Amino acid sequence: MNNNIDLVLFGAKGDLSERKLYPALYQLDRAGLLGNSVRIAGLARQDISSADFITTVEESLKKHIPESEWDDAAWRKFSRRLSYMKVDFSQKKDFMLLKEWLVEKRTAIYYLATPPSLYGAICNHLNDAGCVDDVARIVLEKPIGKDLDSSREVNATVGVHFDERNIYRIDHYLGKETVQNLLALRFANRMINSQWDNTCVDNVQITVAETVGIEGRWGYYDNVGQLRDMIQNHLLQLLCMVAMEPPNSLQADEIRAEKVKILRALKPIDSDNVLEQSVRGQYSAGWISGEPVVGYMEEEGSQESSNDTETFVALKAYIDNWRWAGVPFYLRTGKRMQDKVTQVVITYKEIPHAIFPDKGGDSKNRLIIRLQPNEGIELEMFSKKQSLKERLSLEKRTLNLDFFDSSGESRIADAYERLFLEVIKGDQWLFVSRDEIEASWRWCDQLLDSWSEKNVVTKTYSAGTWGPSKADMLMEKDQRSWYES
Amino acid sequence: MNNNIDLVLFGAKGDLSERKLYPALYQLDRAGLLGNSVRIAGLARQDISSADFITTVEESLKKHIPESEWDDAAWRKFSRRLSYMKVDFSQKKDFMLLKEWLVEKRTAIYYLATPPSLYGAICNHLNDAGCVDDVARIVLEKPIGKDLDSSREVNATVGVHFDERNIYRIDHYLGKETVQNLLALRFANRMINSQWDNTCVDNVQITVAETVGIEGRWGYYDNVGQLRDMIQNHLLQLLCMVAMEPPNSLQADEIRAEKVKILRALKPIDSDNVLEQSVRGQYSAGWISGEPVVGYMEEEGSQESSNDTETFVALKAYIDNWRWAGVPFYLRTGKRMQDKVTQVVITYKEIPHAIFPDKGGDSKNRLIIRLQPNEGIELEMFSKKQSLKERLSLEKRTLNLDFFDSSGESRIADAYERLFLEVIKGDQWLFVSRDEIEASWRWCDQLLDSWSEKNVVTKTYSAGTWGPSKADMLMEKDQRSWYES
Repeated sequence: MNNNIDLVLFGAKGDLSERKLYPALYQLDRAGLLGNSVRIAGLARQDISSADFITTVEESLKKHIPESEWDDAAWRKFSRRLSYMKVDFSQKKDFMLLKEWLVEKRTAIYYLATPPSLYGAICNHLNDAGCVDDVARIVLEKPIGKDLDSSREVNATVGVHFDERNIYRIDHYLGKETVQNLLALRFANRMINSQWDNTCVDNVQITVAETVGIEGRWGYYDNVGQLRDMIQNHLLQLLCMVAMEPPNSLQADEIRAEKVKILRALKPIDSDNVLEQSVRGQYSAGWISGEPVVGYMEEEGSQESSNDTETFVALKAYIDNWRWAGVPFYLRTGKRMQDKVTQVVITYKEIPHAIFPDKGGDSKNRLIIRLQPNEGIELEMFSKKQSLKERLSLEKRTLNLDFFDSSGESRIADAYERLFLEVIKGDQWLFVSRDEIEASWRWCDQLLDSWSEKNVVTKTYSAGTWGPSKADMLMEKDQRSWYES
Repeated sequence: MNNNIDLVLFGAKGDLSERKLYPALYQLDRAGLLGNSVRIAGLARQDISSADFITTVEESLKKHIPESEWDDAAWRKFSRRLSYMKVDFSQKKDFMLLKEWLVEKRTAIYYLATPPSLYGAICNHLNDAGCVDDVARIVLEKPIGKDLDSSREVNATVGVHFDERNIYRIDHYLGKETVQNLLALRFANRMINSQWDNTCVDNVQITVAETVGIEGRWGYYDNVGQLRDMIQNHLLQLLCMVAMEPPNSLQADEIRAEKVKILRALKPIDSDNVLEQSVRGQYSAGWISGEPVVGYMEEEGSQESSNDTETFVALKAYIDNWRWAGVPFYLRTGKRMQDKVTQVVITYKEIPHAIFPDKGGDSKNRLIIRLQPNEGIELEMFSKKQSLKERLSLEKRTLNLDFFDSSGESRIADAYERLFLEVIKGDQWLFVSRDEIEASWRWCDQLLDSWSEKNVVTKTYSAGTWGPSKADMLMEKDQRSWYES
């Protein structure tokens, strides 16, 4: 059991901590997966006592955890781990408080749930206060930079004090049960694995659609846009999990090496093909779940802007390697879309010759990996319609490959539970390496340059739709369409 | 809707008629699948009235049909189709009665539920009485001969009066929903089809195990044995459905041509390999479901016999073609076995390199086509065990590919329902062609000759077991074992 761990949360009063981090730690504790001596310190600027802090954590837990999963005894045990320190992350001297709290021969884990602009200062102050040793780990949330150069800067700053093996870059999609199950399905089943290439797969679609808009972050978002905010990290990580070669083993280095190979094999979208292979969009006013919402340029905090910021991106990408050559990977992500959907759809090629009565429908096998809503994996197949009235006609059927129903577990663990466990164990297999970050930015930078060079402006789409019609045309000109479940 | 059909059952008082044929016809009628003008005549030697006959059919139906499927109105409708004729099948003159009953411009279907020794006489008398025209169809039950020569004789005798396109040879396994679904799964799903060969499949096992013994037919069976009784027809037909190439279409000729190709590609089991590739067994006294049963040589009707008759056969067969070269097809069938099981098990090859923790269990994908008990198709796969406690370990899962549960139909149609429907429609796709019968006998004759040449005697096995231990060794020497569900 993991013990001798001191977990330090920077940004202890922030939204991420309240929504995700405390609930995940509470659930791990309730499941008996936190060693008894694990301690948790919350750090923030507010001048409150530990007792007040613990009260606010309790309130926030009760808000974010289903009532059926609340357990007074578990909470009492969990609360005894918690303490609070008032620390201004820009003030070197404040870190001495932390130094005093730490105990030698234990492993410190610094979780930076703060704006990335503070990463450098925090690392320096940690070091100056003597809080960094060979085993101390640091956990970083996105974004790591806003292009290749700035991400290198962040990585270099953190890398001065922490070795790469102690740096845990979070992409919470990797913590999802279903994403890990994809590895199991791909590499434990000959039936799946031997079809996983350009001889059998027609195309791959990755959709991450949000219904939310900018959520009050206009000033930040207007300098970033959807490519940097979502594609560079989440969509490309999903693409890697789908496309990577079988690793030598499940060790972190082996998995991450395979993912880097995919990112490096991504064919550049350059000025020659950017017009055919990419679509930018920006939402205008519309309706979400029956409620009117404003357009991007009318959002709270918006102002005159020379940025033509995209809130939607659709891409056709190719992976230039032996397995995937010629197979299009369609990526699509946007804010203020019709539904909240995160899914990967692998469409197999048509059977070469159909001997069954043509019902005019689609007749391709599909594997659907769904993260939102209702996490799960499904396989669409065709079997005989059970009927004496017809000779031999087909029906499309859906197989559940995730087996969540049949497993003994009553709930699917949240991504952050798994990720905390792995940080505590010191296993980086579900975290993003520096090489991955940089390869991913290199590809995105090229695309950003091409947009600029070819002056690719955003197309307007009404909030509550699936993006600009040009995104549908991206598919239609290939005689395909976006998969709608 | 099929109409203008006159169905004539020879052997109307026999066991097959009562157990299978009347229930199937009643069910078709109840489901609205028999044209209103379809008539059914029962023919047998007994001197009873049509009214008496109808009463005995009603009694027998009530015995063989679940109470929930009995419907008085359906029965009244069905009973009005029935009439009876006393006919001695060896008496030419008796057939005039039938001739009078038939109506011109309607299609007669002669169903011979009689001993095959009567096929010749019945055909001749039908012809002499003017009951055979271009459209009249004849339905034959097994066995068609007891070797190639005698099967040719039967086929020739019937063929004098009936064209091959009007001859329907029954192998009731082909009428099963699950066997037809195998065609759908194989040829409508790229995911299944592209794995269906010697690069992906490790071995195929076909088991037809009965718990019954000779059932009072000792005198007949002692001259036949299990190879002729079961392998030549049922097991080889299943083998064809598994192994055949995709046909050009679902037309009967195309499907049957592909099946013949498989039978002709069966590598002979000759005197060079018969000792390694075949096992013969005969049951001795033992226990079936907790009841003592006698051995084969103590069965009712048994007598001194110079035949060393096998009641069990296990074979390792190969198909010499491009798709299946090198893949062993293990066939096993016996009487007085431990359980009543009919199944085909396709075992895929191991994944080439395992990256998951080895739990010591079996890690191969399997497709299981089960006809008895609980007809269905299952796929064994591996997915991530849903647990935070383990990093990434696997669990074996079973997927139902038949979808019987999810179909609207509440019952699975019996094979004879489907087969009657196809005879009435005039579609031979689920019936066995003359070429198939002969190719199948040719291979079996070769095996019988090799047994005789090498003096392969039966090994004893206790009733209620899985056959002689030599049958297990047949597998073990290949580092495999029989699949037990």
